[in-house]
Amino acid sequence: SPGKGLTVTTDDGRFGMTIRARAQLRETLAREDKTTNEINVKTLRLITQGHVLNPDLKYNIQLAFGTNDFETGNPSPIFDAFVEYTRVRDLNVRAGQYFVPFDRARTIREFALQLVDRQQVVQELTLDRDVGLMLYSNDLGGLNGILGYHLFIGGGEGRNRFGGQATGGIYVARLVLRPWGPFDDDQEGDLQRLPKPRLAIGLAGAYNQNTNRQRSTTGNTLTLGTVDYRHAAADVVFKYSGFSFLGEAVLRKAGSDILEGTNASGATIREYTRSGWGYFLQAGYLVHPLVEVAARWDQLFAFDGTDPALIKQVDTQGKQVGGGVNVYLNGHAFKLQTDYFYIFGNDPSVHRHVVRLQLDASF
Amino acid sequence: SPGKGLTVTTDDGRFGMTIRARAQLRETLAREDKTTNEINVKTLRLITQGHVLNPDLKYNIQLAFGTNDFETGNPSPIFDAFVEYTRVRDLNVRAGQYFVPFDRARTIREFALQLVDRQQVVQELTLDRDVGLMLYSNDLGGLNGILGYHLFIGGGEGRNRFGGQATGGIYVARLVLRPWGPFDDDQEGDLQRLPKPRLAIGLAGAYNQNTNRQRSTTGNTLTLGTVDYRHAAADVVFKYSGFSFLGEAVLRKAGSDILEGTNASGATIREYTRSGWGYFLQAGYLVHPLVEVAARWDQLFAFDGTDPALIKQVDTQGKQVGGGVNVYLNGHAFKLQTDYFYIFGNDPSVHRHVVRLQLDASF
Amino acid sequence: SPGKGLTVTTDDGRFGMTIRARAQLRETLAREDKTTNEINVKTLRLITQGHVLNPDLKYNIQLAFGTNDFETGNPSPIFDAFVEYTRVRDLNVRAGQYFVPFDRARTIREFALQLVDRQQVVQELTLDRDVGLMLYSNDLGGLNGILGYHLFIGGGEGRNRFGGQATGGIYVARLVLRPWGPFDDDQEGDLQRLPKPRLAIGLAGAYNQNTNRQRSTTGNTLTLGTVDYRHAAADVVFKYSGFSFLGEAVLRKAGSDILEGTNASGATIREYTRSGWGYFLQAGYLVHPLVEVAARWDQLFAFDGTDPALIKQVDTQGKQVGGGVNVYLNGHAFKLQTDYFYIFGNDPSVHRHVVRLQLDASF
Repeated sequence: SPGKGLTVTTDDGRFGMTIRARAQLRETLAREDKTTNEINVKTLRLITQGHVLNPDLKYNIQLAFGTNDFETGNPSPIFDAFVEYTRVRDLNVRAGQYFVPFDRARTIREFALQLVDRQQVVQELTLDRDVGLMLYSNDLGGLNGILGYHLFIGGGEGRNRFGGQATGGIYVARLVLRPWGPFDDDQEGDLQRLPKPRLAIGLAGAYNQNTNRQRSTTGNTLTLGTVDYRHAAADVVFKYSGFSFLGEAVLRKAGSDILEGTNASGATIREYTRSGWGYFLQAGYLVHPLVEVAARWDQLFAFDGTDPALIKQVDTQGKQVGGGVNVYLNGHAFKLQTDYFYIFGNDPSVHRHVVRLQLDASF
Repeated sequence: SPGKGLTVTTDDGRFGMTIRARAQLRETLAREDKTTNEINVKTLRLITQGHVLNPDLKYNIQLAFGTNDFETGNPSPIFDAFVEYTRVRDLNVRAGQYFVPFDRARTIREFALQLVDRQQVVQELTLDRDVGLMLYSNDLGGLNGILGYHLFIGGGEGRNRFGGQATGGIYVARLVLRPWGPFDDDQEGDLQRLPKPRLAIGLAGAYNQNTNRQRSTTGNTLTLGTVDYRHAAADVVFKYSGFSFLGEAVLRKAGSDILEGTNASGATIREYTRSGWGYFLQAGYLVHPLVEVAARWDQLFAFDGTDPALIKQVDTQGKQVGGGVNVYLNGHAFKLQTDYFYIFGNDPSVHRHVVRLQLDASF
Repeated sequence: SPGKGLTVTTDDGRFGMTIRARAQLRETLAREDKTTNEINVKTLRLITQGHVLNPDLKYNIQLAFGTNDFETGNPSPIFDAFVEYTRVRDLNVRAGQYFVPFDRARTIREFALQLVDRQQVVQELTLDRDVGLMLYSNDLGGLNGILGYHLFIGGGEGRNRFGGQATGGIYVARLVLRPWGPFDDDQEGDLQRLPKPRLAIGLAGAYNQNTNRQRSTTGNTLTLGTVDYRHAAADVVFKYSGFSFLGEAVLRKAGSDILEGTNASGATIREYTRSGWGYFLQAGYLVHPLVEVAARWDQLFAFDGTDPALIKQVDTQGKQVGGGVNVYLNGHAFKLQTDYFYIFGNDPSVHRHVVRLQLDASF
């Protein structure tokens, strides 16, 4: 069906398969000293999902083919590849590669954003994807969806990593409270415009032991050793009658700021880890069943002694404020989006204006 | 159905999806000083197309997985990704990544060629794919398909380009006249063998402002600055009773032949743009409902002062003459092809013989 | 249907298409001096197969998207892409890219292994995939499947190779005898647990002329010239009442051990070819309809004068002994596997323990 792809199931419930595609076309105009233009197919996804043997034994495969979807030097397009068994209400089990169940904003799927792209805070500080095992429930104890939890243990080095790594995984716990019952808190905006308030409050913590990635599960690969990272996140989603609010604070702290080693000629060389925190506030309102306006404030902080590149990033683009308009022709599955952001930091000499126009279409 | 893939549609017309695949197996024997051999899966395509929400809101996604289908250093297999709205006869609208509507030969789809590969003139001088917006009609004014036009505005840097570019897009206009009505002028050969003459005459012009690609929308990336290119094309297609003729002339002229800059040590370095023109004449005849013979003359010219590599290419392989035989087991969707080319130029000491055998199959 | 994907056929038999996916999740713990951990989506496959025009005109496309499935510097995910015509019992014809019909172990498809990964002997000495033409029969002479043969002629440089190569292809012949009739000798294990003995004996030889690959059809590309390789293989498969045995010996011998050339500064440089042989013995038994235990001994030998890297590999990891347990939830199409291997060689100071856990699921 429209935006949901082609689905085939057998009558006996032992097999179901859905094939979907999604494309994102984006035009970006940016002005700092001079104006630059960027237009491309930002991403293209192929998704195959379904169930085998049993309606509760599900699988999900997502491939991402946009140029920026690939990790440097790695031609693998695999984003998601997991199986899960959802028979036991309080103990769903998932194994494979998928989003780490950490902060709310990043686990909102990309097709369901109400501004053109994710928050800077989230791009810097989230845990993105990893390979491992998750135990979870969206309705712990059968309390009408009021309580949810996720426990995750994984490799900690992120997606599509090959070769032996130092032992020591990542350990994540997340708790969600939805006091007035479950709702679509994994999608931004209140497209349903229900005349009743809905609220979700989430808390999460994580410990990533002996990782070799500069952003814990993503970013440059550290070559001089490994590091432990501590992570925390708190987030809130509220929706009412077409109004939606999403707020989140995220923190990442490395066990040490610097790794030291020697290069081939014996000189001391250094690699930095990245520690910081940030928060954002984002709200939207549907002024018409198909039209939404939205706005966001997004601020990032670097801890003292951390990677100078992160400190510079905060100084030059750590604060981002902007707003946008969405036209939902088929909800999030076919929408036109435009937004504007003013990007600045502690350094008053640097600031940037960015205007984006996007078509996000699921088939 | 055979060669057209698996199609699913809903009764209400709000959803349709087709999944197809196409493979091309090729063997090439070339003889210059010594003989070389090349055999591979030249290309493999996955195509997903259909409509969503409305029969006139169409989409098309084509991924290309052959080794040579990728741009250097870019693992993205995206060839086409666009949506279009075709409700208004005189003003169809298409947005996304696809073939620039410039010369006839390049917009003939690759599965519908009557010789094993495209013309050298077209490979050097066409505009290939870009990202942008197209307004077009195949039946302007409702004159039984006699008039067609395409207007395109795009980024101008070609497919799958990321990062901010100098502003300045590409602007393309194309006009087609089919005096005796519409026909399959986007496929080579006259497989229908209709006993009535069919003719299409096309004219196109384009201006690509501030591009950083050496062939305007393809080729090496210029690092010392950007350049403007002017383009022109004229083409003719004629078919009658199994006979087909395709002829085309194409031209590309850069605003300047040389970009200059300095390298790290302060020395002057240069990059060249590529200006030239060429034409080809190609004809085929179906000697049997399934068997066609075809021949081609293809000649490329370089302008004075342009990239020495292009001048050398013209001198050593600027003239190509050859012919081939096709066996159409399911039209263009399943065919065996063989051809021979004699390749030479202005330099009498260099010439080459190339024999190719190919299976092109759509599933 | 479960594990076999989504299949669509037309009533007239002129078209059929199946779309399948397969994922392999693997966790590997290895201990040499220190312990390392590796967890990833080892491979992810998309398969499209079917027939066109005629039930006997079949095609098969397999794409592999795991990080390690790609050749160095080549973003093409194409594993298989072939068409075949199977109408004539004694002379099936296949053209395209696919497994060279050489040793039994490698032509067993990866989803049908009874230990977590292939044998070291096979990974080093097999002929893997190539592009070419195969004539074959699984029932030569109509003797109830007792006799089979494969003749293959191909490029010899392996999969997805572009650019002209030295002429000289690969020539392969394989003969199979199944004295008690045909069975699933292309799958490891006896999941059917039939109470009758089944046996297959295979012999194969190959000659690869003027290849530029260090392992004949795979491995590093030789730049100083080409080499001829001779190959031989003998293999046996036996199954009875849930018990299965697979044994194989493989040999590869280069025409010369060393290629010599000069580098830019005129110094002599060398490239080595890789010659050696090896064998393995592997057995399994289904102790329960869904549970199998299996074990393997695997030994590799290097010939004198061959690549020092191969000699070192034999010295440090040429002998591998281990066993494992499989739980077949849907046969080979959905199974949990674990195994342990002790890896050592002639050098007593080097040895390694490897434990692996794997989910292999076809959808």
